[in-house]
Amino acid sequence: MFSFFRQKPRRSDSAAAAKERLQILLAHDRSDRAREDLLPLLQRDILEVVKRHMRVESDAVEIKLERGDDMSSLEINIEVPDTQPRHAG
Amino acid sequence: MFSFFRQKPRRSDSAAAAKERLQILLAHDRSDRAREDLLPLLQRDILEVVKRHMRVESDAVEIKLERGDDMSSLEINIEVPDTQPRHAG
Repeated sequence: MFSFFRQKPRRSDSAAAAKERLQILLAHDRSDRAREDLLPLLQRDILEVVKRHMRVESDAVEIKLERGDDMSSLEINIEVPDTQPRHAG
Repeated sequence: MFSFFRQKPRRSDSAAAAKERLQILLAHDRSDRAREDLLPLLQRDILEVVKRHMRVESDAVEIKLERGDDMSSLEINIEVPDTQPRHAG
């Protein structure tokens, strides 16, 4: 299942190139086609959750949504320019 | 990137077998190894977000966390027994 993660080339250890990255993938397979597509709703809420824990610039977020009849998928890629931690209250 | 979704066999259209499924995959690649691992925190918050939108039984959630030195991954699989919608307020 996680082969796609492992296929990604490891970044170099160059400090200049070092980035913190978070990738979120969602797949929604619904048996009832009339059911509202959940992913656009989750996209907003999950981004809010991520921002509680790390500093995210809006231009550092890349989102791809693919909709099918009964299967939709959402990909969120976030790059964080530094690793200053943020903690939820 | 989404080949792993497409590789999954399509479920049959048998009504008895019909399930709504949501799969969430996260990969966290951090340049600073001292940085706290984000994924266990996100796991809790994302499950809360999902429960706002769909009915989730705790025994229908399967979670796999893999931790590496600078790369961790989290897989959340949720099966929903029926497709009764829930909407956030």
